[in-house]
Amino acid sequence: MSAILDVPPDLLGVQQTIADAMARVEQRFNDALRTDLPPVEALCRHIESYRGKMLRPALVALCGLAADPGSTVSEDHITVGAVCEMIHMATLVHDDVLDEADVRRKGATVNRLHGNEAAVILGDYLFSAAYRLCSSIPGPLGQRTALLIGQTGMTLCAGELLQLHHREDYSLDEATYFEIVERKTASLIAASCRLGALHAGAPDDLAERFAEFGMRLGVAFQIQDDLLDLTGSEAVVGKPLRRDVELGKLTLPLIHHLAAAGQRQRGRTLALIGADGPDAAGAAAVGGRGAKSLLQAVLSETGSIEHARESAIALVARARAALDPVPDSPAKRVLLLMAEAVVDRAF
Amino acid sequence: MSAILDVPPDLLGVQQTIADAMARVEQRFNDALRTDLPPVEALCRHIESYRGKMLRPALVALCGLAADPGSTVSEDHITVGAVCEMIHMATLVHDDVLDEADVRRKGATVNRLHGNEAAVILGDYLFSAAYRLCSSIPGPLGQRTALLIGQTGMTLCAGELLQLHHREDYSLDEATYFEIVERKTASLIAASCRLGALHAGAPDDLAERFAEFGMRLGVAFQIQDDLLDLTGSEAVVGKPLRRDVELGKLTLPLIHHLAAAGQRQRGRTLALIGADGPDAAGAAAVGGRGAKSLLQAVLSETGSIEHARESAIALVARARAALDPVPDSPAKRVLLLMAEAVVDRAF
Repeated sequence: MSAILDVPPDLLGVQQTIADAMARVEQRFNDALRTDLPPVEALCRHIESYRGKMLRPALVALCGLAADPGSTVSEDHITVGAVCEMIHMATLVHDDVLDEADVRRKGATVNRLHGNEAAVILGDYLFSAAYRLCSSIPGPLGQRTALLIGQTGMTLCAGELLQLHHREDYSLDEATYFEIVERKTASLIAASCRLGALHAGAPDDLAERFAEFGMRLGVAFQIQDDLLDLTGSEAVVGKPLRRDVELGKLTLPLIHHLAAAGQRQRGRTLALIGADGPDAAGAAAVGGRGAKSLLQAVLSETGSIEHARESAIALVARARAALDPVPDSPAKRVLLLMAEAVVDRAF
Repeated sequence: MSAILDVPPDLLGVQQTIADAMARVEQRFNDALRTDLPPVEALCRHIESYRGKMLRPALVALCGLAADPGSTVSEDHITVGAVCEMIHMATLVHDDVLDEADVRRKGATVNRLHGNEAAVILGDYLFSAAYRLCSSIPGPLGQRTALLIGQTGMTLCAGELLQLHHREDYSLDEATYFEIVERKTASLIAASCRLGALHAGAPDDLAERFAEFGMRLGVAFQIQDDLLDLTGSEAVVGKPLRRDVELGKLTLPLIHHLAAAGQRQRGRTLALIGADGPDAAGAAAVGGRGAKSLLQAVLSETGSIEHARESAIALVARARAALDPVPDSPAKRVLLLMAEAVVDRAF
């Protein structure tokens, strides 16, 4: 979390609380994966190097503290945080197989080091461990949590399948783009926020506001990812860029551009990204430096990069507004700052 | 189930009960996968063609009836049956990706028709749907069920990872083989039996006997699969055979043979299955008819096919003995017949 955010002095206390909670989440995460089989243990250790911003567990804890400012980060919050992070890891491991990615968080991916087979099964192992851990939360709220986590797993897979269905669909509209992103990225972030609030005793309508906050934040986060893939620096982001275009995944700037451009420009852009034929030379070039700036320039002409940036900023405003009924507290102020930070981040 | 078993006239009643229950399981299975996204719906419909023997849901229902002969197949039994079948399906879909299989139950695999990416995500969708469905069972027994299903998911993935670790390990011993099979195949069958009994109100020690029945049965089932892969008829089994050897998966007959054969014979067998070099010609030939009978002949010389068959028969005897404390009932008699049928089946 500290990696995402520079907080003002008056919020250092809650930042430390979250840092302590994240250390407990890591411990729970590792304990839940423990196994007596050395080859399985070795793969699980590899996963530790994937651990990044811990956005989802941080949101679980912060939404809990914001929903009940008198509360502390409970054992159930730690468990839910570890569950959400584990499901996120499982999707990362499988995404890397699907995208044939070699590098993640500046290190080699599981599929690169151990093969696709190990990566597919390890992802399944993480999903199973997440659900097992989730089912350890006692009582009716535990059951509600397990149902929500299972449902969220289905939602995010459905989002990925929808995205796959529209791969190389150069007529994809923004509504479908948002539907994909809400499911595949934002649903788990929304669930993290909702569960954080529920486990602090929030009533359903208040928990709904936290979920809405997470949903808008998640979509803004994905748009920023889209932008970084187009305009970011590989050294800062920590993984190869321009992959979305290569893989035929349409991102918001490109969708806007293809809709806004005249027919001739549309044709030129499709040629540039190698979408005008099975063997087009442009596709590879987009990955390089020259074509990258060319694509950026082309997208700027229709104001498409600006459009995506504005969409993200508008979503952040809606995310912040969703928390209007939540009383002020240090935790709420950190959440609001995090929302701002999503569209400012360079990684 | 009826596909597995010809039952005597006095057991036709319970066979009909199970057939009715399986129709309800199918309905629950389909309902749990329902989605508003047409591309996802299409993939789920494909899964229906995978539906085969429904061994796991049948065991859930039969163990429930055997644990409490006065009972009926409850709604929770139906749910648990659908959950176990869904987890089994998820592993089949992912196995087909790993094995690059084109055919399953005489139809094209998901990966063949829709690509590896769709197959990986569809498997994840099935896992998630199974856990969501599982978490819908109310009360403490529901929570216990969810924990056990999550744990079983971890166990079977760990078994697959262990198998992968030992791929092309031509010194694999029988103890490790059994460890792999108990985890990757038998654990879910054991869980099906245990949950069937628990949901009929069986005390833990009785449920443990049903789990032991399932564990032995599951291992016997896998050994029979091994044997069919070596000696079966493709037209009857419904998928290409001799794949285990091609994929470097050691099966019980081969493990026994490599341990029992003299050094010269061992070298000849390794050459025959293409294990003596990266480019050995033998590997492909084993898949063909001529080499198949040659491999069978070689394995017979050390009594290795017979050894595997006897191991399976001994396991079936142990499975049946595990049910000794269970009072006689039509359901118990069907379970005992099913155990016998496992080693007699040709598909």
